Amino acid sequence: MSVSPLAPTSFPDLPAVAGVQLATLAAELRYKGRADLMLALVDEGSAIAGTFTSSLCPSAPVDWCRKMLPGGRGRAIVVNSGNANAFTGRHGETAAELTATAIASALGVPAEEVFLASTGVIGENLPTEALTNAMPELASSLAPAASDTWAAAAGAIRTTDTFSKGSGSTIDIAGTAVNIVGIAKGSGMIAPDMATMLSFVFTDAAVTPKALQSMLSGAVEQSYNRITVDSDTSTSDTVLLVATGAAGIAEIAGPNDPGYAEVAAALDSINLDLAHQIVRDGEGATKFVEITVSSADSDQAAKVIALSIANSPLVKTALAAEDANWGRIVMAIGKAGQRADRDSLAIWIGDEQVAAGGVQHSDYIEDRASEHLKNDHVKITADVGIGSGTATVWTCDLTHGYIEINAGYRS
Amino acid sequence: MSVSPLAPTSFPDLPAVAGVQLATLAAELRYKGRADLMLALVDEGSAIAGTFTSSLCPSAPVDWCRKMLPGGRGRAIVVNSGNANAFTGRHGETAAELTATAIASALGVPAEEVFLASTGVIGENLPTEALTNAMPELASSLAPAASDTWAAAAGAIRTTDTFSKGSGSTIDIAGTAVNIVGIAKGSGMIAPDMATMLSFVFTDAAVTPKALQSMLSGAVEQSYNRITVDSDTSTSDTVLLVATGAAGIAEIAGPNDPGYAEVAAALDSINLDLAHQIVRDGEGATKFVEITVSSADSDQAAKVIALSIANSPLVKTALAAEDANWGRIVMAIGKAGQRADRDSLAIWIGDEQVAAGGVQHSDYIEDRASEHLKNDHVKITADVGIGSGTATVWTCDLTHGYIEINAGYRS
Repeated sequence: MSVSPLAPTSFPDLPAVAGVQLATLAAELRYKGRADLMLALVDEGSAIAGTFTSSLCPSAPVDWCRKMLPGGRGRAIVVNSGNANAFTGRHGETAAELTATAIASALGVPAEEVFLASTGVIGENLPTEALTNAMPELASSLAPAASDTWAAAAGAIRTTDTFSKGSGSTIDIAGTAVNIVGIAKGSGMIAPDMATMLSFVFTDAAVTPKALQSMLSGAVEQSYNRITVDSDTSTSDTVLLVATGAAGIAEIAGPNDPGYAEVAAALDSINLDLAHQIVRDGEGATKFVEITVSSADSDQAAKVIALSIANSPLVKTALAAEDANWGRIVMAIGKAGQRADRDSLAIWIGDEQVAAGGVQHSDYIEDRASEHLKNDHVKITADVGIGSGTATVWTCDLTHGYIEINAGYRS
Repeated sequence: MSVSPLAPTSFPDLPAVAGVQLATLAAELRYKGRADLMLALVDEGSAIAGTFTSSLCPSAPVDWCRKMLPGGRGRAIVVNSGNANAFTGRHGETAAELTATAIASALGVPAEEVFLASTGVIGENLPTEALTNAMPELASSLAPAASDTWAAAAGAIRTTDTFSKGSGSTIDIAGTAVNIVGIAKGSGMIAPDMATMLSFVFTDAAVTPKALQSMLSGAVEQSYNRITVDSDTSTSDTVLLVATGAAGIAEIAGPNDPGYAEVAAALDSINLDLAHQIVRDGEGATKFVEITVSSADSDQAAKVIALSIANSPLVKTALAAEDANWGRIVMAIGKAGQRADRDSLAIWIGDEQVAAGGVQHSDYIEDRASEHLKNDHVKITADVGIGSGTATVWTCDLTHGYIEINAGYRS
């Protein structure tokens, strides 16, 4: 599979995060000749927060994480790629438990503080014995989180991803350097309310579980919940956020504590970066598409309309063809089910206004819109003339490549 | 464009409907060398019923029809293909009114009893003068509705359709032969709650407007509102049903009147046939797919789940590849947002049970499911283990052909 044309030129050089160790291993559970297991071990007492798929048929690892999350403490995260351990019933439940127990025993940590994620084919049983047998070797391969180990970890969690995804930054909290790094995977089954997507974010800030969850929920709503590749939502979507506290700042317990705003802002920006990288790896994507809707009834209504445009196969195929077929944008606004005033609707492609007051704009020149559509970062803006709600979402175009990948790969 | 592989072998031999005359004309408003105007003139006093797009940005002809429908009486229907007269503001409104006035004057009927439909590109102004100038010639070309004129009329309303769509039957009401014939168009922008779809159905039964609307609403809910090609809903969807009364039966005024049940049943079956023909002409379709969901919370919940499966790009691409990737069916059920019991979910592909009790069925043999998927009529069944709601919907697969058509044609 060739790398997405929208991929960043290289994997970023990510900072160390104190209190985090990483390991990867080629257990060849499904893929051959590449790492398919990832382990993160974090310092004792680390706080953990999580957000999971809205699917009513969640995977066994999602069930496991949901059960452990209320404890608020995490020591280890184990991820396997190639098999989602979803729709595997009792077998899947047992496989998840045995995996957690095996790594807990190899690391000497409580199984209740082990978190799991699996990504890949749905409905096939995990090869439990091969998986649990690999845990001691995985545990013995740990090394501090640093530029090279982040890259290896981001690689091990990939399935149809054509590039590894990572993002990080170092911020200053009252004179202390605090590091935040996230890695993610995802390229198909990507839709709002969590996508086929795994994302693991680590910081050495000290944050209580409750404050950490609040930071995470805010970040997820502004990032992963605003991207879509194909409107399909997976059974396995998981975002975990760990705070080790090893940087040595005072613990952040709520929004008014020193450092909360800075850490939350850094998290927002890292998660948005990761979300954009997932769209840039959208199956078959050749365009990164930013859609902004304004003057809707509410921000939520604006998001629904923006996602209606972003998920429309007819809009997405027109963008692939660099065709300024704005009638399809009108169609998508009309079917969104949210209030829009047809007779004051305005639409822009890039900076070119194509429609105003419910008709084609008098100064519209199609060649200028077409010129914008030749870029690989495309912007569509719609003012629906009702209220003051606004939202931006991100998607990609729909090409032969999407069909090629999904009529071939069994994901 | 080659004819859909799912097309019927030929256009049906449709009966005459007393009190209906048809005309077509090549006005070359957009297409060259083919008829693009269709006129139906029906006897004075004919009752008319209609159902229109749920889009909040409806086309000018839809607005016009909605305004005229409360009268309950119709004399003429004019349809142009190639231009949807949608998102054309005041110009579009005027164009619709001028068209209605021109044909009314040519035919000597009230403009308020003229109904209009336009299908094609959104956002371009109708060439009003060319259109109104064509009305006298169109009016002078009328001939009784019969096998050949039905075929010509069905041809004139096509856009990206690869075959003409028609269906009809003759039933016996108290010893009198009553005829019902429908023609339709549609192949893309097809989604529930009305599709990019026009359908015109005529009967020589005598039915009051109110009873006619009740028959139509029932038929639409069980047919057009249960098909989807690409989840996109157009600005122009229109179904009109005309009853001329010319067969000479006693007028049907309500569900308890003689003939109501028979006419309603014939309408249901004709509209379902037309709806299936639209799916069979789904852009790029190579499979006709029937999806049944049972044991849902309610019939409505079953329909939502069935449409979630039917609209999933991942399910549709797997079907195109004849890949029994049932994990994607689980994913689509999970994202539908309706109650489903993962641990008692059962799934069939054709007659082969692939899943039971939330896991792969112990007797499942993938080769048997794959064998079924080689057919061009494919069945998927899911029992979601909650209640007694059930629904069947119809769709097609998602192929390179869909991308080809929609990255090329400006619809």
